[in-house]
Order: sequence, then C-alpha cells, then structure tokens
Amino acid sequence: MVDVQRFGPTIRITMNRPAKRNALSYQHLVELLTAFQEAGESDATGIVLAAEGPVFSAGHDFADVASRDLEGVRDLLDLCTELMHTIQEVPQVVIARVHALATAAGCQLVASCDLAIASDAAGFALPGGKGGWFCHTPAVPVARSVGRKRLMELVLTGDPIDATTAAEWGLINRAVLPEELDAAVDDLLARATRGSRVSKALGKRTVYAQLDRPEADAYEIASAVMAEASQTASAKEGMAAFLEKRHPTWPE
Amino acid sequence: MVDVQRFGPTIRITMNRPAKRNALSYQHLVELLTAFQEAGESDATGIVLAAEGPVFSAGHDFADVASRDLEGVRDLLDLCTELMHTIQEVPQVVIARVHALATAAGCQLVASCDLAIASDAAGFALPGGKGGWFCHTPAVPVARSVGRKRLMELVLTGDPIDATTAAEWGLINRAVLPEELDAAVDDLLARATRGSRVSKALGKRTVYAQLDRPEADAYEIASAVMAEASQTASAKEGMAAFLEKRHPTWPE
Amino acid sequence: MVDVQRFGPTIRITMNRPAKRNALSYQHLVELLTAFQEAGESDATGIVLAAEGPVFSAGHDFADVASRDLEGVRDLLDLCTELMHTIQEVPQVVIARVHALATAAGCQLVASCDLAIASDAAGFALPGGKGGWFCHTPAVPVARSVGRKRLMELVLTGDPIDATTAAEWGLINRAVLPEELDAAVDDLLARATRGSRVSKALGKRTVYAQLDRPEADAYEIASAVMAEASQTASAKEGMAAFLEKRHPTWPE
Repeated sequence: MVDVQRFGPTIRITMNRPAKRNALSYQHLVELLTAFQEAGESDATGIVLAAEGPVFSAGHDFADVASRDLEGVRDLLDLCTELMHTIQEVPQVVIARVHALATAAGCQLVASCDLAIASDAAGFALPGGKGGWFCHTPAVPVARSVGRKRLMELVLTGDPIDATTAAEWGLINRAVLPEELDAAVDDLLARATRGSRVSKALGKRTVYAQLDRPEADAYEIASAVMAEASQTASAKEGMAAFLEKRHPTWPE
Repeated sequence: MVDVQRFGPTIRITMNRPAKRNALSYQHLVELLTAFQEAGESDATGIVLAAEGPVFSAGHDFADVASRDLEGVRDLLDLCTELMHTIQEVPQVVIARVHALATAAGCQLVASCDLAIASDAAGFALPGGKGGWFCHTPAVPVARSVGRKRLMELVLTGDPIDATTAAEWGLINRAVLPEELDAAVDDLLARATRGSRVSKALGKRTVYAQLDRPEADAYEIASAVMAEASQTASAKEGMAAFLEKRHPTWPE
Repeated sequence: MVDVQRFGPTIRITMNRPAKRNALSYQHLVELLTAFQEAGESDATGIVLAAEGPVFSAGHDFADVASRDLEGVRDLLDLCTELMHTIQEVPQVVIARVHALATAAGCQLVASCDLAIASDAAGFALPGGKGGWFCHTPAVPVARSVGRKRLMELVLTGDPIDATTAAEWGLINRAVLPEELDAAVDDLLARATRGSRVSKALGKRTVYAQLDRPEADAYEIASAVMAEASQTASAKEGMAAFLEKRHPTWPE
C-alpha cells in the first residue's frame, strides 16, 4: 500500500491506501519507514512523498489505535516518531507533494519533510483538539514551522487552513494550482538537489542538529562540522572549480 | 478593578482601571492572578481577557515601581511572571480581546494568552527601550511569537505596530474592524473550545511544555503524554464515536 | 579595506573590497572585528554596517579557505563566529545597510545584525548547498530569523531570494527603493537609539541571552536583569520624568 518508484535521481514514495484516506496504521507506518530507509541507502538525491486518493493522509488509523493498550500505543507512536526522524536523517532531500487534505499525523508528515509544496486544493489541520485525543506529537514539528499563536489556533480549534495560508505561515514552501503541482515539485527538488551529494547530506543533518538551541550551542555544532567539511574532496573540488572558473565534478 | 463575568461556558475577565490605563500595579496583578486562578478551577471552557477604557493595558504602573527597592521590584516581577504562567497553566483556552493599545507588560499579557484578536484600532509596543527601563520580561513571550528582526525592532525602537502588522508578524491571530471584535472573539473561542475539555486541557499544557526545545526532547515529552492520553475515557469515546459514525458524548 | 567613519552618534563600518566582492578573508574579518570592538568601546549609540561595490558580501574568500588545513579553517571559522558574537555583544544598536547581494557568510552578517534594511536591488542566498561546502554556520543565525521550511529552501537550493521576500520572511526589517535606502536606515536607527544608552545596552544583551530557551528559563534570565535594572539611575530618571510629565535627562 506504499508504492516506491524511481525516476532518474528521484525516488517517489506514494501512500496508496485511498479507501482508508492513507491513514497511518502500524502496517502503513512500517511500509513508509522501510521505504524511507531503503531510499536513504540508495544513490538517489531526492525523495518525493506523495499520496493517492481524495486525502493526502488522515493521520493515525483510529481502528488501529482503539484496539491498543498503553504499551501498544507507545509502540505505535514510537514507530511514528521514528518515521519522522528518518525523513530528516536520510541523506536525500525530502519534499512533500501535498495534493489534498493532510490532517493530524498526516500534517505532521508534511511538517517533517525538508520541503513541501501543496496544491490550492489541499488543506492542513491538527483536529485532535476538537475531539478526544489531542494532536500532541503532530504539534511538535508544526510548532517548529509556524509561529506560536498560529500553532495554538491549529491545535485548539482543529480547523483546517488552506494551502495559501499554510504557505504564508511557513508550514509549506509554496501553494500552487493543482495542475502545476508536479512541475513545482520537480522544479524545487531539482534546485534543492544540485551540488555535491555528500556535502548536502552532511548539511541537512547539521541543520537539524543545530535547530532549537541557544545560538552559541548551535555555532559549536555547525562550526565543528564546517571545519571538517572544508577538508573533504567535495569542498576542495568546489573551491578549486570556482577559483579556476570551471564546472565542478563532484567526487561522489 | 478587575471584573469577572460568566457567560455560559465562558468567563470574561476585564481590566477595569480606565483612568490608570489598566496599568499593572501590584494590586491589579493580584486581582488578575486571583481571577485567572479561580477561573482555572471553574468548569468554564474558555476565558476572555478584555479591558475597559482608551487603553488595553499600559503595563507596569510607574507610580508603583518607582517607590520600590530591589526586593520590592523582584516581588512585583515575580507576581507578573506568575500571572503569565498561570494564563498558560489554566485548563481553559484563554483569548485576548484587544480593543486598544497594549504596551510593555500589557503587550506581554497579549503574547501570553493562547489566542488573541485585536481591533484595527489597537496597537502593540514594547516602549521600555526608548526610555530608561527596558522591556526585558515583556520581550520573553513576544520573542516566542514573532521573528527575531521584528522582536529587535519592537524592543529597540519602542514604537507601536498596528494590529494588521501584529497579525502579519504572528503576535495576534487576527485584526478585525472594531465593530466585529466581539463576534470574532466569540467565533474563535467557540471553535477553540469544542471537544473534550479534559483532553484539550492536557493538550494545551503539553504544547507549552514542548516548545523551545530540541525536537527530540519535544517528542519525548509529547509522545509520553499522547500514549497515556490514548487510554483516557475522552480518547476512547472520541475514537468510538468516529468509528461508529455518531456524535461523541464527552465523559467530563 | 574596512572604512570606519563617525557621523554624530553613529559609526559607519564599510566593507570596501569591491573587487573581491567584500569576501571575508581572514584579514578582512580581523579588520571588521577590530572595527566593531573599537566602535563597541566608543560613546556612539548606533553602528551601520555597509558595503561598497556591486556585492554586499560574497562570504568566505575561497582563495583564502582553499589554502588552509583543518586547523587553519577552524581558526578562520572561530574568527568569523567571534565577529558575529561581537556584533550582538557591542552595546550599540547595529543595523545592516544592504544595498546588493549578500551571500553565505555575507548573509550571515546581515542575519547577525540587530536590524537590517535592504534595497530592492539586494538579494540573499546561502549558496554552499549547491556547491561542495555547505553553509553550516551561516545557517545558524538565519535559522533563528526565518521559519524552518524557508531555511531549508535557502540552504538546500542555494538560490537567492529578493529583498521583498526577505522582509516577508523576517530576515530583514524592510525592503525599500535603492534611493530611499539611506533615509530608511537613518530613520530606523534614529528610532532604535533613543532613550538611555545604558538601559538599551543591557536590554540588547539580555534579549540575546534569553532567546532560544524554554520560556521559564528565559523568564529567569530576564526577570533578574529587569529587577536590578529598576534600581539604576536610568530607570529612576525615566520613571520620575514620566510621573512628573517632563522630558528625561539620561544620566550617562
């Protein structure tokens, strides 16, 4: 129910449980995690997270959750969190292609991708707050993408915002017409995957490592990596090519 | 000088010292704190923080501060900080209804509420920076609502921004026409107070607990709470109602 | 190659290596650091960071970096980080006057200034990600100014954003017509340097100290400083002048 396709340097991972609104059952999460882990070990430079059907993803599958005891839900949430971490840990650039409504852990998925482009037909919601099980973990990456008052509006009301609002708030990079969605995803991903693959993978990891820390701590993390990175073949080739006014040839 | 009224599920707390521009004297802070603590223990689901007169709140009362020694000011600031924490700790959704200028600790009050809607006639300023006593503590919640350059402009210039700018920067949720202020507050609060009261209270507390931390730490906090929450009567009723396609009846 | 001029209460520090696109060689960084340290010890109230030539600053000088071993690059990055810290540590308000493209560590400079105004002709980029040496340290202050998705777009694509976009994202305070740049810088700096110099210097330092921490920690830092500050001559004069309805005379 998760399709994986390779298009040149790009792997497209597609949630394909439309009848279940791509709800994140334990099984579906395992398939997504496996797909991201395998893509992470491939030589692809970019990953598109897409979905089939009328909904991008409705989040956790209540039929699955309702039958679990405390330990069972812990296992489910640990798996879900591992998926979110894995999206940030793979060396590839990960972009969400959001064609429709993304709610709860589905919205968390979008917030956890490096980049996101949505169709004007999409929407974003953290609906747990208007029900009986609050969107505690989806609020984690959303809080790190939008301002506090906007976060509180999302989690407390549970109401969806449209894609244009999501772009204004910084939850996604851009809202586009539905018919321009694929072109916009391809364009941004192409621009985001240029350059040395090794250098970019290290960069992505280091950015996530330095976020949400006092600035002095962040500088310690980033400076140590940047100094080491200066001695890599990628950095030396990039600087040499620049100084010699030629196109670089990345050594990986 | 602080009025407390109950309207159905909502408690309205109104600063009513118009002649003093609702300045936050020690006495006024005690009254506000008491009002929030009592509202917090009530069965209300929402709290509106409003004000009477030409100014929402001018912040600390210089007549009060000027007469205090170091220990006296510490007591005053501790009380003020306790009020700000209490607004975030009460189980109810707290929304600021800002009809006019909110400055210094008055602006801090707005930044500390979960949600805020302002009239176009309102303004927001941290004026200490253009005087002799900098807005150190008001800058704390404002820094957690707006971007850094905007924060620095507010604290360094001391000049007010209008409500539309405040909405664009994320300091408030929305700027509306003065005659639409009450309807907009009622609408947002109604949407923000749906669902299980117990679940929402836990959600509000957990969101504040996970903010401003590295993402992995935030996930630890949020995941532990969300797993426990899955076993509550609220969560079970919410999921059962969804799966059985009926309206939920919250058990509290 | 760094010009320092005094205009009344303002010191203007100008990068003047136009042929090298104001690249931040070790020597250039030493000159900038020295200029900021000396300005910091002066009685000026404001500092403008400006640049001459077709580029504001292109960031690190690859001719300088390429010849360095690991220790050499560490020295260079430590010096660069010390400059960024110093800009935040000097008691003066520091405003970037960005007339043209600011990239990599040049963009980091802008993000590190307290305030920034740019001409519509300016642009901002973190281009390392499309080359072989990722902009690890420039991403540190940029991450603390713009939202996460926007940060990832900047670091992963390496493509420039224009000044209007930079203002919308909060990387700068304002984008203006080129012919209005100096007037806009002067206006914002004048408004940002009013009031007690001693009080504002303490305020600036305390704001940076409380950022990027859990709110309770930030309150501890800010409250302690604000209580002490209440007993200073500046605070007492400011409050007395307000209560006596007269203009204050700052004691420093």
